[in-house]
Amino acid sequence: MKTSPTDRIASATLRRYGETVSVPGESPGLDALAVLNERSVCRRYRPDPVPESLLRLLCATALASPTKSDLQQADIVRVRSPEKRAVIHRLLPASPWIAAAPEFLVFCGDGFRLRRVFGRRGVAFSNEHLDAFFNAAVDGAIVLATFVQAAELAGLGSCPISEVRNHAATIAELLELPDWVFPVAGLTLGFAEAKEPFSPRLALTATVHVDRYDASRVEEELDAYDERRMRDRPYRRQRQVERFGTAARYGWTEDKLRQYSETQRADFGAFVRAKRYRLD
Amino acid sequence: MKTSPTDRIASATLRRYGETVSVPGESPGLDALAVLNERSVCRRYRPDPVPESLLRLLCATALASPTKSDLQQADIVRVRSPEKRAVIHRLLPASPWIAAAPEFLVFCGDGFRLRRVFGRRGVAFSNEHLDAFFNAAVDGAIVLATFVQAAELAGLGSCPISEVRNHAATIAELLELPDWVFPVAGLTLGFAEAKEPFSPRLALTATVHVDRYDASRVEEELDAYDERRMRDRPYRRQRQVERFGTAARYGWTEDKLRQYSETQRADFGAFVRAKRYRLD
Repeated sequence: MKTSPTDRIASATLRRYGETVSVPGESPGLDALAVLNERSVCRRYRPDPVPESLLRLLCATALASPTKSDLQQADIVRVRSPEKRAVIHRLLPASPWIAAAPEFLVFCGDGFRLRRVFGRRGVAFSNEHLDAFFNAAVDGAIVLATFVQAAELAGLGSCPISEVRNHAATIAELLELPDWVFPVAGLTLGFAEAKEPFSPRLALTATVHVDRYDASRVEEELDAYDERRMRDRPYRRQRQVERFGTAARYGWTEDKLRQYSETQRADFGAFVRAKRYRLD
Repeated sequence: MKTSPTDRIASATLRRYGETVSVPGESPGLDALAVLNERSVCRRYRPDPVPESLLRLLCATALASPTKSDLQQADIVRVRSPEKRAVIHRLLPASPWIAAAPEFLVFCGDGFRLRRVFGRRGVAFSNEHLDAFFNAAVDGAIVLATFVQAAELAGLGSCPISEVRNHAATIAELLELPDWVFPVAGLTLGFAEAKEPFSPRLALTATVHVDRYDASRVEEELDAYDERRMRDRPYRRQRQVERFGTAARYGWTEDKLRQYSETQRADFGAFVRAKRYRLD
């Protein structure tokens, strides 16, 4: 017997948040919402190609997302060339699914078109400041998110690759991104051979606030989440044992502390400035 | 007779992009993809409240989105207090749907929890640079995007309000956002009384690239889009006639030129720095 979407949502939210969330079965869209709640990252793909028409539809769906002031500051670059894919994989050898996935896409923020509109009319663009960069970044992220969810609904799996920003300048050159166009993240895509285990998240009491952000509760939320992580999805290995030793209790906070105690991507700002954004 | 999802998608993509995109009818998820392709912004709501359980489910669905390195740097603040909602509406009087919508939410990027993890362990956080801010902004945008699409699937309508960043400091204070937490956008939500007309977008040939971004084609893409906008959805009024005059041909590029020839939100960077981000 097929499990009802209500039951699937109840089960997924319990595993994700430690809290059962469900709505009456007559609500519209529950099948789709169940799919989105059951999503987990996919790093192993079947060799079957993604049909061209489906890929086109996913792009169309993603680019139909809301966009700040109708500025449409996002692009999708499909990396079809095996040579270019190999270059990106060599830059990020720890992610072999970049080479193995049927499709690899790069989602970009794009402030180039808007500057061109001004440039060809000879009108000064008086918005070179952080917010302009922020808007393009957000537009790119929104298109990425919708693409991921649309792919999931269509029965595909995907894995975002924010590590493309570890080599932003090299990848921008490879893909011939003009000034004011920058990668937000890559994405591997295909039919899933296997998906990764479901990832528990911070409780909704930690991330959904009413009227005010209660910062005093952060410590207890972090502790409760560590407990739940250790119980429901213990980490298989500890990071940086040589520096931090082997922890008796290794939860999310310990993992993130170790991961971010090393400097990462400190040169991204320089790349963005070289792409002519001002971040004042 | 009910229109098939394939036909709905074909019609929506033709109107959106000037190109019919469709896939074989046996593909999974086409009903949901049709809903996402037919989305348009909603600024007029029925008075019916959004059921609490449905709102909770939409939050759960949105926060289950991919998140950079499992850092979960996003929050949703539901503004339930009529007084706080009124303050926000007074700041943005041009958007009366902020006051009238059944729900108003603010989506935030959140680097606070991660700093707290470091702070309470006395380990230096060595990632105060642009990328750390970027990651939190992208996480917030991803959660916003998934929320919008999930709401659409559930039969609701929504309208993102990036203008909350016009008053970022005031709204951050109102919602008691701690250091390293910043608004990405607001969102009005409810059952639709009416949706806005469907918005045509840049052609997919302009925004979907293969292997390289061909900057030489931008001019012709902009011209073609202007033509399509003027034909399919002419602007009802021209901006800044006193400065630019009345244009005989008023397309997207003319509208965006006029809109962004005035400086907007130049103080957002100062706000973000005051929230203790470094943007180097």
